[in-house]
Amino acid sequence: MTNKRKIINDPVYGFLSLPDDFIYDLVCHPWFQRLRNIKQLGLSGYVYPGAVHTRFQHSLGSMYLTSKAIETLRNKGVYITSDEEEAALIAILLHDIGHGPYSHALENTIVSDIPHEKMSLMMMHELNKEFGGRLSFAIAVFEGSYHRKFLSELISGQMDMDRMDYLRRDSFFTGVIEGEVGSDRLIHMLNVYDNKLVVDEKGIYSVEKFLIARRLMYWQVYNHRTVLSAEHLLIALLERARKLVSAGRYLFASPSLDFFMRQAYVDATDREIVDAFTALDESDILSAAKVWKMSDDFILSDLSRRFVNRDLLAIELQNEPFDNNRVSELKVMARDLLNLTDDDAASYVFTGEVYNQTYAPGKVDVRILLKNGEVKDITSVSDIFDHKALSERVTKFFLCYPKECRNK
Amino acid sequence: MTNKRKIINDPVYGFLSLPDDFIYDLVCHPWFQRLRNIKQLGLSGYVYPGAVHTRFQHSLGSMYLTSKAIETLRNKGVYITSDEEEAALIAILLHDIGHGPYSHALENTIVSDIPHEKMSLMMMHELNKEFGGRLSFAIAVFEGSYHRKFLSELISGQMDMDRMDYLRRDSFFTGVIEGEVGSDRLIHMLNVYDNKLVVDEKGIYSVEKFLIARRLMYWQVYNHRTVLSAEHLLIALLERARKLVSAGRYLFASPSLDFFMRQAYVDATDREIVDAFTALDESDILSAAKVWKMSDDFILSDLSRRFVNRDLLAIELQNEPFDNNRVSELKVMARDLLNLTDDDAASYVFTGEVYNQTYAPGKVDVRILLKNGEVKDITSVSDIFDHKALSERVTKFFLCYPKECRNK
Amino acid sequence: MTNKRKIINDPVYGFLSLPDDFIYDLVCHPWFQRLRNIKQLGLSGYVYPGAVHTRFQHSLGSMYLTSKAIETLRNKGVYITSDEEEAALIAILLHDIGHGPYSHALENTIVSDIPHEKMSLMMMHELNKEFGGRLSFAIAVFEGSYHRKFLSELISGQMDMDRMDYLRRDSFFTGVIEGEVGSDRLIHMLNVYDNKLVVDEKGIYSVEKFLIARRLMYWQVYNHRTVLSAEHLLIALLERARKLVSAGRYLFASPSLDFFMRQAYVDATDREIVDAFTALDESDILSAAKVWKMSDDFILSDLSRRFVNRDLLAIELQNEPFDNNRVSELKVMARDLLNLTDDDAASYVFTGEVYNQTYAPGKVDVRILLKNGEVKDITSVSDIFDHKALSERVTKFFLCYPKECRNK
Amino acid sequence: MTNKRKIINDPVYGFLSLPDDFIYDLVCHPWFQRLRNIKQLGLSGYVYPGAVHTRFQHSLGSMYLTSKAIETLRNKGVYITSDEEEAALIAILLHDIGHGPYSHALENTIVSDIPHEKMSLMMMHELNKEFGGRLSFAIAVFEGSYHRKFLSELISGQMDMDRMDYLRRDSFFTGVIEGEVGSDRLIHMLNVYDNKLVVDEKGIYSVEKFLIARRLMYWQVYNHRTVLSAEHLLIALLERARKLVSAGRYLFASPSLDFFMRQAYVDATDREIVDAFTALDESDILSAAKVWKMSDDFILSDLSRRFVNRDLLAIELQNEPFDNNRVSELKVMARDLLNLTDDDAASYVFTGEVYNQTYAPGKVDVRILLKNGEVKDITSVSDIFDHKALSERVTKFFLCYPKECRNK
Repeated sequence: MTNKRKIINDPVYGFLSLPDDFIYDLVCHPWFQRLRNIKQLGLSGYVYPGAVHTRFQHSLGSMYLTSKAIETLRNKGVYITSDEEEAALIAILLHDIGHGPYSHALENTIVSDIPHEKMSLMMMHELNKEFGGRLSFAIAVFEGSYHRKFLSELISGQMDMDRMDYLRRDSFFTGVIEGEVGSDRLIHMLNVYDNKLVVDEKGIYSVEKFLIARRLMYWQVYNHRTVLSAEHLLIALLERARKLVSAGRYLFASPSLDFFMRQAYVDATDREIVDAFTALDESDILSAAKVWKMSDDFILSDLSRRFVNRDLLAIELQNEPFDNNRVSELKVMARDLLNLTDDDAASYVFTGEVYNQTYAPGKVDVRILLKNGEVKDITSVSDIFDHKALSERVTKFFLCYPKECRNK
Repeated sequence: MTNKRKIINDPVYGFLSLPDDFIYDLVCHPWFQRLRNIKQLGLSGYVYPGAVHTRFQHSLGSMYLTSKAIETLRNKGVYITSDEEEAALIAILLHDIGHGPYSHALENTIVSDIPHEKMSLMMMHELNKEFGGRLSFAIAVFEGSYHRKFLSELISGQMDMDRMDYLRRDSFFTGVIEGEVGSDRLIHMLNVYDNKLVVDEKGIYSVEKFLIARRLMYWQVYNHRTVLSAEHLLIALLERARKLVSAGRYLFASPSLDFFMRQAYVDATDREIVDAFTALDESDILSAAKVWKMSDDFILSDLSRRFVNRDLLAIELQNEPFDNNRVSELKVMARDLLNLTDDDAASYVFTGEVYNQTYAPGKVDVRILLKNGEVKDITSVSDIFDHKALSERVTKFFLCYPKECRNK
Repeated sequence: MTNKRKIINDPVYGFLSLPDDFIYDLVCHPWFQRLRNIKQLGLSGYVYPGAVHTRFQHSLGSMYLTSKAIETLRNKGVYITSDEEEAALIAILLHDIGHGPYSHALENTIVSDIPHEKMSLMMMHELNKEFGGRLSFAIAVFEGSYHRKFLSELISGQMDMDRMDYLRRDSFFTGVIEGEVGSDRLIHMLNVYDNKLVVDEKGIYSVEKFLIARRLMYWQVYNHRTVLSAEHLLIALLERARKLVSAGRYLFASPSLDFFMRQAYVDATDREIVDAFTALDESDILSAAKVWKMSDDFILSDLSRRFVNRDLLAIELQNEPFDNNRVSELKVMARDLLNLTDDDAASYVFTGEVYNQTYAPGKVDVRILLKNGEVKDITSVSDIFDHKALSERVTKFFLCYPKECRNK
Repeated sequence: MTNKRKIINDPVYGFLSLPDDFIYDLVCHPWFQRLRNIKQLGLSGYVYPGAVHTRFQHSLGSMYLTSKAIETLRNKGVYITSDEEEAALIAILLHDIGHGPYSHALENTIVSDIPHEKMSLMMMHELNKEFGGRLSFAIAVFEGSYHRKFLSELISGQMDMDRMDYLRRDSFFTGVIEGEVGSDRLIHMLNVYDNKLVVDEKGIYSVEKFLIARRLMYWQVYNHRTVLSAEHLLIALLERARKLVSAGRYLFASPSLDFFMRQAYVDATDREIVDAFTALDESDILSAAKVWKMSDDFILSDLSRRFVNRDLLAIELQNEPFDNNRVSELKVMARDLLNLTDDDAASYVFTGEVYNQTYAPGKVDVRILLKNGEVKDITSVSDIFDHKALSERVTKFFLCYPKECRNK
């Protein structure tokens, strides 16, 4: 008989152990194993070569932190049943199960209308059928419908175990040490009040630090301009491929990639979609792009070459929208330089925006449990964070164009 | 002949090498070696057992970071002569030379009126005599009188190499990892504009992170309430000892400690003060306190016992001043409990305040060099930091009293 | 104009900077960028989820350590020209350029007869043509034909910068911290004697530690039994695919994978081989295996499923060869269980051997420079290492079979 | 009421929590608090500036590892009662309680005949009286008289939690990263067989690595020649002081230091010895030595100056004894140089020896539990370690003399 109490080596936390046999079975499931082929940070590896860690690791790490949080809460006298514990652990283990390769790029092109949260839920329901209803409780926690809200807040909130793990892990693998958060300390500060997750008063500085670290990672890693450039190059490439396929051209592609390029999912059942989706990972995109480099469609071949060889478009990032005239001029320049039609120049010269909100009040707040027993929102007890500044949505604008236009 | 190009193992940065023979001689000087016996964080070891690192390490570490900063600036085209480099390295190496044991406590009692900055300068001048004027340039950089201000700003400013090292080092030895600052990245972002130190625009998030980390260390480590309690116990203890000595009582003490207890420095020459001061370190205080435990003066003996055995006073920390009535009641309680006079109860029950300012504008600002060539203050370009909130002086109030009063 | 003095963030060493413009151009070359898609440890990620780091990082890291080693040697008075430095840096940068995906598995099947060392050299020669002879010096250093042997020994020897980096890096990403080597200290101990690389006497313990760490990584990571099982499953899978292709069956595959499956390289020119080879990476194998899962050839489909889903064969590892009878019985069992022919059972039940030699004398020895000026081999000065024990080739035997046979 | 479930921040392991109220009381005991003033590595800080960590931290860290080991053993089915657990935790917590300042130097001079193991036991018995017999069980485990030997072996053996912690901790604080041992992995490999501690077969490489790391730390840190030189300077200094005191001279000293200098313990009761001993720490030695610098006894004053200012004697370390003639010549030289008598020259020029044994069989062996159920000694299953080489006692010889003699 297989020993299912496996211990897994994690460079971030050391040894992680799988808590029970059912969770072992979930980890072995092909859909979970597939996360080994989905990078946590997609194209950020183009900027931070170490950042090739996977959603597989992240999912296990988040589960580990959740078990630590539950241990802390129990030590503080919060009663949590072993069923509740397992439900929370499964919910966090599977919270990213619906992530595809290069999620951002794909959700904007060939897998539009199926955000990964929706896909995760769809897959959990399929797994629930397969395992005879054993995931029902976990799904309730995942959806936030279970009455003890703090369990759901551990999975998804302003300071959930998902964020806690990804900030530490992304910091570790990128080498951007400023993004490191003291997950140990933060978890030790957690508490429950009125069925909601709160942070003990002495944790205020750690919370501030957490929010700032997250903000820093946003601009320094997740929305690093080179990452944005790579992502939007991939979007342009997939758009082009889809357009050619729609026009009846044959393109080399694995069946699963082909399914999504043809948008076959529009008329498919949930199960068909899930089957196609779970067969798709980064290898399909990369393997196809390498073949497309040889295409006789210049744009497909050129964008593929740029993507595969990391010969990215130039990008500028600023706080104000770009001047329309400048964009038009660049389009003309690119059109002439690369012999494009006016329409096709839009694959090479385009603008867009990204935004970030350090703290999004309203959804799930960070509540501080004061020594006097009161509970207040972090923005009203931190003496440094202006509620307005913190919760403001910061938008930045970018402009991409071929590097060749720069030297003109 | 002695090889003076020593390599020193530092747990924080790895290998540090001493840059030249003269600096080697300074490091070997008894006054610098004395820093081995002065803990960087004084009594913080009472809360963080690992935090027993010394000013010796910190001084070497700050010098290392300064040499890295100079290397970065040179790579960016800032011309720095080797004399300027040596002056800056010596200035930072010696910036803490005037620190005594438990600086905060001593400067408030037996070594009042001689703040460590003044003592450092006094000692540098003595060293300058000893080494025939070779420290004159370094002293100019230390005092800020040299015209290339950025050199002085590396030694002392809002984001100098002193702070950079102590935040990383204190974070390392306390285990409070949230205090860690990305010194590598911050140093890579440094630049010089108009003879002043500036930070390249893309370093904004790192600066924000640095300020928040420093703030967190303030409240979590430097002004941790247990540390405050220990420090003020030591102040009360030294006050009591001085009072007894003034009254003609003999107390066991090393000659140097005796010199300061008798406030003999009031009429002494600089050289006499420096000689007595450099003979003083933590061992004199601790060794004496252990003997004083046996004193027949109850207060001296009791405070010594509490200090040596880490049986500290209870402490409360809050944002508002304490109610006078409560303080009076506690004094009465302590007086009765310990059989004290009304006057002496003040050694056991007292209040005080501590403050911190995350960013102190005016002195030396953090200037950001924008991509468009402009230089602006961090508070005007950060979209999260309200100038007012950042630069506000946060005051907290504390109240100490014997733990025995708590259970009444 | 592009700034080619890029700084790269590495989680292992911090910031790495590219030393000159030509090296920047090599790093940007598609053949070097391709290393982003080749994992350093191939299938070890199946055991150590963090170990998905790439040959791209490792190549940059090895170059960094080489530059540190050259800096150390220069500080010790070894004269090294800047041309020699660049040659050494290029040689180490490109030392792994000829690695394909899952090298061990492929070199045993579809890319047999072209070991990666040979391919690396082939590619360097092609690059040399492309860059007009600028790599000639580097190639001489790589091949060991340059008269200052220590430069070549930094690239390839018992304690070269390649090993130094991979041990530290593999230790970092697997989380097997015992494999960590003190590369800083070891590099500081390097010296040159009679044009050969030597280690200063005080480095003996570090050398011993290095050899033991390497040995530990061999058995704990590189030849971990689960890794061996995965690798041999992949070999069986590729064998099956090649057999079907030889028999005229169509199998989904990228053109490059197809080229090697058909063994087209036998009659190809160097350039053709290199072109096909550089188009091949892990994505082609994985993407194909996912499609092959649907094949109507049971063995191809079953092995693909096992490989993709990490449903590996059971494996046993021992110091003696396995009993033939047991192997035969297992084959019969597997044949009956999976409905195979006798011949095909060999894809499921097989034995093999792996070996390791902690120290391979003769090739390039680890020479210790004693304080008295003599140079001796490490095995004759270490008081713990028996020359015989150290240099002995340790062989272990493994046996693989379907897990289903275990429970019978 | 005081909350006794304290959490302590440790830079090596993160958060440590005190397991129960009684252990909290022991930690608060003045004798345990005193360990804050005893450095783990004594004078090694003279070579490794970061190595100023204390026996206080080490004792807590060893207790933490012991609790982890017990958790692992329980998970493997070894039944351990909570009384047994507490006994083991107390035994390890107090294993170093009898360490004085600069143990090695003091045990060779003013505290001879009372090795720290004996003192630890004496103090445990005193504590046992104080706490009404609650330490009896712990003392049995400490002495090895409890029948479940594995508990005692966790405290004291070839691979006990004491060594495990000090290797990791000393490696951390010195920055000698090669000394790091994978305590997590080693602990996970522990098991119990026939009431004895064993290591699972797959831990063989980790054990080898542990032994080599320990050996490296011995020569690189614990017996580093500069550390030896400092230690023997201190011995010479204390000898001189004792000699003067015996001759009736008054020397500044705290009462406790005075007690030992006068060897008053010869006629004292255990309690008197313990009381004097627990009042002694490094501050007494350092504080006195600073005063002795001013002594009119040249030798006392000169040795004190050298000790305080780290102006150490030159030292040579080699594998063979030193030539007698050379030693005699150096003595003459030192005598003339410093105006000493022939006798007194022996305080400045002397030889000695140190030794280390990587593995000391016989005492408590490292037993490996093979997969086939057999238990064998590590030396018979490791294919690299020759039993003879491993267990050989390696002796080195040193020679100290004033640096001034070197340049003659």
